[in-house]
Amino acid sequence: MPRTTAIRHQLDSPAVSDQPVPIIGGTGALGFGVALRLARAGTSVVIGSRDAGRAAEAAARLEEQLPGADASGLVNDEATRTGPIVLLCVPFRNQSENLTNLKGALQPGQILVDATVPLAAAVSGRATRLLGVPQGSAGLQAAEMVPDGVDVVSALHTVSAATLNDLDHELDEDILVAGDSVEAKKRVAELIARIDGLRPVNAGRLEASKLIEGLTPLLIGINARYKTHAGIRITGLPAEELW
Amino acid sequence: MPRTTAIRHQLDSPAVSDQPVPIIGGTGALGFGVALRLARAGTSVVIGSRDAGRAAEAAARLEEQLPGADASGLVNDEATRTGPIVLLCVPFRNQSENLTNLKGALQPGQILVDATVPLAAAVSGRATRLLGVPQGSAGLQAAEMVPDGVDVVSALHTVSAATLNDLDHELDEDILVAGDSVEAKKRVAELIARIDGLRPVNAGRLEASKLIEGLTPLLIGINARYKTHAGIRITGLPAEELW
Repeated sequence: MPRTTAIRHQLDSPAVSDQPVPIIGGTGALGFGVALRLARAGTSVVIGSRDAGRAAEAAARLEEQLPGADASGLVNDEATRTGPIVLLCVPFRNQSENLTNLKGALQPGQILVDATVPLAAAVSGRATRLLGVPQGSAGLQAAEMVPDGVDVVSALHTVSAATLNDLDHELDEDILVAGDSVEAKKRVAELIARIDGLRPVNAGRLEASKLIEGLTPLLIGINARYKTHAGIRITGLPAEELW
Repeated sequence: MPRTTAIRHQLDSPAVSDQPVPIIGGTGALGFGVALRLARAGTSVVIGSRDAGRAAEAAARLEEQLPGADASGLVNDEATRTGPIVLLCVPFRNQSENLTNLKGALQPGQILVDATVPLAAAVSGRATRLLGVPQGSAGLQAAEMVPDGVDVVSALHTVSAATLNDLDHELDEDILVAGDSVEAKKRVAELIARIDGLRPVNAGRLEASKLIEGLTPLLIGINARYKTHAGIRITGLPAEELW
């Protein structure tokens, strides 16, 4: 994709691009899909799980699907220590518990990418509805819970786990990226842009996660109605230099 | 646009398509832009305003911009009586007042299309933030306030007033349409699909307006950041037969 290539070339994060990417909740559909796509782009991925065996099994499955890929599996807190950008791809019901467990593992300077969406399904409600989160959003809850010095960036809410996992499916959609550190957002944008067909768009400060997280239940409704795996695109953006 | 044409042909609303479309707040940027685009599509528009003189002036201005267009201007409650689908394009600060004033004019069987967004700018806050509305959203507030028998459909939140008003600008984006009456949504979809380059997408029940209204402050932030007039597109939808 010339578009994502252009973005990749604008960014300059040599320290990041050669590092493994830990994915907490990497055995779940979203986390595994992101792992697959990153691995296909030549990035080493570390699949995190509560269970070391399940993590290793998922990593082996990934390498089987993608010969030549570099994937390993570790329990979540060990996975967290393996790379500077940590992806959190867990259901909202488990977000707080996971962040509590990671308090000792996350280090200042790391970036936590929160992809959590507070669907009402977390409390046996509908997946087309959003819960009210005391902090305002799942992203803001994450920011409250990470150790000092860890930047939270909110992203990956609108890309479908199903299409990520279907490597024959060509992605062509945007990822809204919100966060209070411009530098952290750029590094996350560079990571996302490695995946062919995903274009990261700067959606502003972390508080915008309140608005972005609402897209997921909206798309879940659209998916049911139109029997599809929808995503979003922002129209009217310049063709290049988004970051 | 073959896409919008296809949608138009799927719908069957002869009773609607030949009727004028009243636009409450039609002298404002969004209302006037929608009026312009509908008028260019051959639809008669009735521009409503609190002030009859300003309504007439806007209608004259529209006909001057678009020779052959059919536009008239009336005070809001008179405008409301002229067509079955009434567009409400007023700032959130005035939404409640307008709906109170229209209680005697709106009749059972009419459809009110609410395009209101509760931006925090309504109370001197930021346009990139959403207010909490007691009913849950501006659309739900409208539903609480209209007379019995009037269906509220929430739509037109993401299309930029600036691009609507620039007739040289080719639109190419989606409009999320939410409402509790499927029939009313279809009629509104037919109306929106008359505008070249706008594709109406069924976004579910009226409560989805909570999620959709959040797109406007998100896009306002993106507009400022990227110096553009952004809109949205849902990816992955079938090419035709959305309604």
